[in-house]
Amino acid sequence: MNYKMMGRFIAQILTIGAVFMLPALAISLYYGEQQAAFAFLVTLGIFAAVIGLLRLTCRSAPSAFFAREGLVCVGASWIVLSLLSCLPFYFSREIPKFIDAFFEIVSGFTTTGASILPEVESLSWGILYWRSFSHWLGGMGVLVFLLAFAPGGSKGQGFTMHLLRAESPGPNVGKLVPKMRKTAGILYILYIGLTVLNVIFLLIGKMPLLEAVCTAFGTAGTGGFGVKNDSLAGYSPYIQNVTTVFMTLFGINFSCYYLMLLGNARAVFKDEELRLYVGILVGSVVLITLNLRGFYSTLGETIRHAAFQVSSIMTTTGFATTDFGQWPAFSQSILLMLMVVGACAGSTGGGLKCARVLLLFKILRRNIHQVLHHRRIQSIRVNGQVMDEKVLDSANAYLAAYVIILFASYVVISLDGFSVGTNFSAVLACFNNIGPGLEAVGPTCNYAAYSVLSKLVLIADMLAGRLEIFPILVLFSHGTWKQQ
Amino acid sequence: MNYKMMGRFIAQILTIGAVFMLPALAISLYYGEQQAAFAFLVTLGIFAAVIGLLRLTCRSAPSAFFAREGLVCVGASWIVLSLLSCLPFYFSREIPKFIDAFFEIVSGFTTTGASILPEVESLSWGILYWRSFSHWLGGMGVLVFLLAFAPGGSKGQGFTMHLLRAESPGPNVGKLVPKMRKTAGILYILYIGLTVLNVIFLLIGKMPLLEAVCTAFGTAGTGGFGVKNDSLAGYSPYIQNVTTVFMTLFGINFSCYYLMLLGNARAVFKDEELRLYVGILVGSVVLITLNLRGFYSTLGETIRHAAFQVSSIMTTTGFATTDFGQWPAFSQSILLMLMVVGACAGSTGGGLKCARVLLLFKILRRNIHQVLHHRRIQSIRVNGQVMDEKVLDSANAYLAAYVIILFASYVVISLDGFSVGTNFSAVLACFNNIGPGLEAVGPTCNYAAYSVLSKLVLIADMLAGRLEIFPILVLFSHGTWKQQ
Repeated sequence: MNYKMMGRFIAQILTIGAVFMLPALAISLYYGEQQAAFAFLVTLGIFAAVIGLLRLTCRSAPSAFFAREGLVCVGASWIVLSLLSCLPFYFSREIPKFIDAFFEIVSGFTTTGASILPEVESLSWGILYWRSFSHWLGGMGVLVFLLAFAPGGSKGQGFTMHLLRAESPGPNVGKLVPKMRKTAGILYILYIGLTVLNVIFLLIGKMPLLEAVCTAFGTAGTGGFGVKNDSLAGYSPYIQNVTTVFMTLFGINFSCYYLMLLGNARAVFKDEELRLYVGILVGSVVLITLNLRGFYSTLGETIRHAAFQVSSIMTTTGFATTDFGQWPAFSQSILLMLMVVGACAGSTGGGLKCARVLLLFKILRRNIHQVLHHRRIQSIRVNGQVMDEKVLDSANAYLAAYVIILFASYVVISLDGFSVGTNFSAVLACFNNIGPGLEAVGPTCNYAAYSVLSKLVLIADMLAGRLEIFPILVLFSHGTWKQQ
Repeated sequence: MNYKMMGRFIAQILTIGAVFMLPALAISLYYGEQQAAFAFLVTLGIFAAVIGLLRLTCRSAPSAFFAREGLVCVGASWIVLSLLSCLPFYFSREIPKFIDAFFEIVSGFTTTGASILPEVESLSWGILYWRSFSHWLGGMGVLVFLLAFAPGGSKGQGFTMHLLRAESPGPNVGKLVPKMRKTAGILYILYIGLTVLNVIFLLIGKMPLLEAVCTAFGTAGTGGFGVKNDSLAGYSPYIQNVTTVFMTLFGINFSCYYLMLLGNARAVFKDEELRLYVGILVGSVVLITLNLRGFYSTLGETIRHAAFQVSSIMTTTGFATTDFGQWPAFSQSILLMLMVVGACAGSTGGGLKCARVLLLFKILRRNIHQVLHHRRIQSIRVNGQVMDEKVLDSANAYLAAYVIILFASYVVISLDGFSVGTNFSAVLACFNNIGPGLEAVGPTCNYAAYSVLSKLVLIADMLAGRLEIFPILVLFSHGTWKQQ
């Protein structure tokens, strides 16, 4: 294991985290929030110390770097960054327990949006900004940012590729243009552009600037942390609808936007994953609207709430305009299913991802076909292209890992004694990076009541979900540490 | 589609069903249960009419017969046999609604043991016998019986193979000896032998003969229908322990017993699936016993209940000696996990099967290994033998189908408005052929409250679970009916 290179790499990641903490500090100072400002300052000092220490000890690193190290790097850097970034919550005493602060920031970086806070309106603006910003940074990825913008951040194509593969959401990223660095840059420019657009639309709806920025962060990262206790329920229908649209947009594979910019709209409209995504969204809104007959006063209101919640859950954002815990069981069951399906690969959203669901359906269809007509083996095509059997293998292995982790986590957190629905939806909501679950962890509740052990399990689930399982699994794997 | 051959085949299956109904009729007559006896007589008349009609119309059948037809045959024969076999429940008015009678008999044949009856002690002995016997017949399979014992039942090796493949639980059956017919015979002789042994042990515990026979049927088929309202709670610890042991025995791959008879005990003890099965059983009992501290008065009682429930759920039998719905959430979560894992392949139990779980873990491990060390592709070995990639593909496709059917069923039955835990465990309990679920479908409750639509979904789930998905999926598949 090339520890020195890993150390240097983590130092770079931490530098980005520290730089991005400066605006939060500025906001605290602007609003005269002394305790928060002090907390940010102390944290920045600790950041500086750790970065300095890493740079000193990891000076002359060998350049050999393999896939294994890439995965370990990614897993470790997310954990170290989270451990340091949660300190402002803790030092400001706005979150008194360290485990809760850690839970909250991991929930932020992984764009989960599960909270241990019973209410957020008493938090200072600096802390609220930092909490929401963690969604934005985690959404597209800290490493992708590093690769795109940091000077000398990449050590050759191999290194970059391993990292980008390990962190990028979904199997598609990195194929936009041949050079990884350029791809990362394009992704971030698209991401920044869409976020700015989102802020502008919210400002048109007369939302105050800082609220608009925080809400856009939560939307762009498909995270779900808001600045109000009732999430988006108190805002105007216009703002709710804008958010519905932008959540849906951020759940789409970013390579679609790149293709659009290149003028290849036809390829986008023919994209099978996008079609599946839109189909499931529309179908779910229709079914829930039918199921909610008489629940709200007008049809328009019903559709607005249905569309908002469907988009919020499927893109794994987790905002709410209404307490869907009160909805009929059928509507809730659709939401539970959407939790598992998730957004498109190559978006900021989580879940299994539509691309994988599509592949699994095709694998199943091929298997039925093979049972019916022995010996005829067909290749599987997506968007007309034959899929490599390796991709199919990894989709299968992913599903196996998904089911195993799901049940193992569920069993452990059951030790706390909550109901089946609470525990199961808590694991689903964290693992798929959604945020709110059902029953005792529903949209009007929070995760504070779980024990430290359960919180650690849910933290691991959030990280495993965001990093698509393998970097976290590899951290715990015997084989990783066996050979030097 | 070779409809004539299918018709003749279904006529043979129905003949077996009718012959096996005679003992139930005799029991009704012996106990002077006129209404039940009348119901059996009328049903036998209908059986005779249908069999005669099928034999007349399907006289000169062509002999070409493919995998597709094998699957359709198996799916169709289970449905037709169930439709006719539920008539005694309905005609005797002991189950007044037809859909409930159909649910009950499908639950019997698929060895699920989910019931719509609030209590069973008011049923007549003839009906109770028939209800329990359906477990026994369904456990090893009606077609396997046909192949083993019916004169002229097989139409050449190809025909037999297709059928046995489609009905046998797990991927291993049919490899004991080269001839299918002989394999089926060996399986049934082992099955009968173990069942008789079970009855003898129960009789030693002073259980009345008919009760012992019915209980042994429920145990052997890993079904779970009993003759008492409180399942096995009212019986002596001896009888409960005997049942624990026999449930565990019937959850083991029958080829292990065959190997034992051949004197190859070493191969049995080295069998990886068996080791996993025993390991999970023992581990679960230990964990639940620890979790149940103070729940029962003595440690012995705790272990007895823990072992019974673990064995009952993992083998997908569904008997109960205690209301595990009252157990702490952690113990319940272990049971929920055992529901998914299930028994060994090639046993009478349901679930994903230990062999598949083993394969999925190995597939996952291989994938991690491939991510870590690019390009090195390893073959997967079970018991030292390299597994064909086709077998791995089908295990993967099975998991995909399993997850998809699980969620689809859950969404539909949610229309009835029960809780997440109730609906989810109901689908799990039916699909994995267990019987009781949690909360409103727990061991002291029943499935009567579900709507007709939900009952139909659960019936389809039970059949799909017992026949390992594909025969039922193929029935609904477009491709099956496309070509003549």
